[in-house]
Amino acid sequence: MASYLESNQERFLSELLDWLRIPSVSADPKFHGDVLRAAEYLKTRLEEVGVENVELCPTAGNPIVYGEKIVDPSLPTVLVYGHYDVQPADPYELWTSPPFEPVIKDGKIYARGACDDKGQVYMHVKAFEVLMQEGGVPCNIKIMIEGEEEVGSNNLGIFVRENKEKLKADVILISDTGILANDTPSIEVGLRGLSYHEVEVTGPNRDLHSGLYGGAVANPINILCQMIASLHDENNHITIPGFYDNVDELSAEERAEMAKAPHSDEEFKQSIGLTDIHGEKGYSTLERTSIRPTLDVNGIWGGYTGEGAKTVIASKAYAKISMRLVPHQTSDEITELFQKHFESIAPASVTVVVKPHHGGEPVVTPTDSVAYKAAADAMETTFGKRPIPTRGGGSIPIVAMFKTELGLDSVLLGFGLDSDAIHSPNEHYGVFNFLKGIETIPHFYRNYAAAMKA
Amino acid sequence: MASYLESNQERFLSELLDWLRIPSVSADPKFHGDVLRAAEYLKTRLEEVGVENVELCPTAGNPIVYGEKIVDPSLPTVLVYGHYDVQPADPYELWTSPPFEPVIKDGKIYARGACDDKGQVYMHVKAFEVLMQEGGVPCNIKIMIEGEEEVGSNNLGIFVRENKEKLKADVILISDTGILANDTPSIEVGLRGLSYHEVEVTGPNRDLHSGLYGGAVANPINILCQMIASLHDENNHITIPGFYDNVDELSAEERAEMAKAPHSDEEFKQSIGLTDIHGEKGYSTLERTSIRPTLDVNGIWGGYTGEGAKTVIASKAYAKISMRLVPHQTSDEITELFQKHFESIAPASVTVVVKPHHGGEPVVTPTDSVAYKAAADAMETTFGKRPIPTRGGGSIPIVAMFKTELGLDSVLLGFGLDSDAIHSPNEHYGVFNFLKGIETIPHFYRNYAAAMKA
Repeated sequence: MASYLESNQERFLSELLDWLRIPSVSADPKFHGDVLRAAEYLKTRLEEVGVENVELCPTAGNPIVYGEKIVDPSLPTVLVYGHYDVQPADPYELWTSPPFEPVIKDGKIYARGACDDKGQVYMHVKAFEVLMQEGGVPCNIKIMIEGEEEVGSNNLGIFVRENKEKLKADVILISDTGILANDTPSIEVGLRGLSYHEVEVTGPNRDLHSGLYGGAVANPINILCQMIASLHDENNHITIPGFYDNVDELSAEERAEMAKAPHSDEEFKQSIGLTDIHGEKGYSTLERTSIRPTLDVNGIWGGYTGEGAKTVIASKAYAKISMRLVPHQTSDEITELFQKHFESIAPASVTVVVKPHHGGEPVVTPTDSVAYKAAADAMETTFGKRPIPTRGGGSIPIVAMFKTELGLDSVLLGFGLDSDAIHSPNEHYGVFNFLKGIETIPHFYRNYAAAMKA
Repeated sequence: MASYLESNQERFLSELLDWLRIPSVSADPKFHGDVLRAAEYLKTRLEEVGVENVELCPTAGNPIVYGEKIVDPSLPTVLVYGHYDVQPADPYELWTSPPFEPVIKDGKIYARGACDDKGQVYMHVKAFEVLMQEGGVPCNIKIMIEGEEEVGSNNLGIFVRENKEKLKADVILISDTGILANDTPSIEVGLRGLSYHEVEVTGPNRDLHSGLYGGAVANPINILCQMIASLHDENNHITIPGFYDNVDELSAEERAEMAKAPHSDEEFKQSIGLTDIHGEKGYSTLERTSIRPTLDVNGIWGGYTGEGAKTVIASKAYAKISMRLVPHQTSDEITELFQKHFESIAPASVTVVVKPHHGGEPVVTPTDSVAYKAAADAMETTFGKRPIPTRGGGSIPIVAMFKTELGLDSVLLGFGLDSDAIHSPNEHYGVFNFLKGIETIPHFYRNYAAAMKA
């Protein structure tokens, strides 16, 4: 006989697609109404499956969707976290189908937010439905889905601090990460932090003709390029003084253990069309994306960028520059070091403004906890293989915040793939992964409730 | 009694403003219809003042407006050159009044093209009218106004090669340059050449999440910045091998002569809001903008440039890079050197495409010719001061082309000011300068015709 999940999977997918049609882009004010519609949609779906006391909790920004099912105060409580906002979708012209008109192609759901994080959040909604249909939830469940993760979760921090009693739980469950491959389950146990800045370099007070002025004024684009270039040395070490001071250096044993994870530089290159491997000297590709901090320019602009040739010297040039942090760097420390250093390397012929955006702290989560084991056992049941603990490259700043504010560890039970192109054109999420998540999550609750009782 | 010019100056200005309302931007295909309208407008105005055989000569691009007044084949012939196309006007938001809704404020005409070059071309139309009203033109005049100067004049070169007989003349007269100040007339006798490129750097084959991939892939923006930064050394010399090989080095005497031109670094800084002087070590500001070649980034773009923070590693980064050339560099030589060098400095982890745009040759025009003296005498009459010969920083590539194809020298009788903000937001042209041009040009024709007869 088909399981409830098997019998209802078409409907589950169809509901997700409806949600993905709402462009809940938090970074751009013009989508504000859509962000609210996406929150309302989620509230309705949660109520339908039996989550109680569902509300849109107002914040200074986008509302947080909160609901709960308290079956017995003596049972353990799991707090599920996720986000319903999505990254901006531009450049739109690089999408093969429009980002907010989801389609399923070759077993994958294509849409902005398909994986990050609406698709993964919706697994939780439907896993809850499955549990309710198959006899009820085995522990207390609280669900908190925010709408500002892609812009720094500032209001979530305030909400959590002000609602510690309401959010009381034993562990936090988050699906916003990935697995190594569909036949190689894994659970992330380390995440990099983030320090993000926008910089502005001003030369002359207006755009100038490069023929009349070229050679005798500081061109802010050339200067910005020089400043950015100087942030790495010839070995791709970051040159900001003090940047590595607090970096947790892994032992040879730990690095040897990491090196056992399946990885091929050749396949890595092919998967994203690289002509060569690149990165900090002395570290492997896996180490470069997990245990080492990095600095990347995420955007740059200035001068004439239209068709044809314009011989202008721009007044201003801009860049967005971010650093991924590792334990035990802190976002505040690195933000201050960056700002000070970047201002210090500006020549006298330009003025520089550094504007920090949001940051996030690096974290390592325990692998010997009841919750981690419950998650690993759940994956072993549904994938038929024990998951590998991995240290990921991305940042989920709220994991560190939950630890500080609520004293709770998080389990990162995510089902995405590196190849899902999150934050990129053509973001997608495997139908396999979506359904596997819905299948796995109930096992986690049952394993966790049983182990906590024991 | 008021002169014809004095009696008609309001109408002359009003006609120019009508022409400036037509956004004849040649770099952007969406203005193609306007470019044609601007050519038609000019044709009608030329016919009205008595220019004969006026036609729109078709080319593979925008038409060339040609007309003539042959009064006597035994008299000398002056070929007037100018352009009716204008630079793109963006960024529009930096204009205090819309670029194609001209206004006169504080004695200045504000509009894209007010000075470069519609305003200066229109002086010739009205100078012709003045001559006709005051007894006729004293020599043969041919007028050739093109519509692709701001995108490289490619079709003008073909037109000139194919119409050598039609364009036969004794000298070329161009008003597309400036004077030092309204009380310090000057005539440009040297112009820098141009080599202009668009470069594209590709890292991964799609945009990536900087958390998952950051540190292990070549970020094309960081790499582009490094490549651009390496094009200058610490003394702001250009590092392209062979770049200076053919540069005409001026003697100590010539440099001492140049240094006599009125200039204050302090005023220069204040005029464009610079915090410090900048440029190639060992040269003065005036030398940096005239006798020395330069390299400037005119535009750069890549990654996320919208509001807020997006943690992306872009697949591609772009820049527009141009070099101003001096005698005896050639555009072809420098274009090849740049392309070869820029490709050679790309690391193996990225691919680079260099696409040359148009170029132009540096020129020095003679100061001992009949035509130069006729122009200098004309200015002395109308300004009450002998003009200073100067070497300018801009490029008028067609001056070198005219010399090669037609064997003719050009006289650069321009009336703009450095502060006119050509190629920038809020381009403007002084009403004083516009009228002074119309007053001066007839003197040039009379002086030239008289001297050639003698």
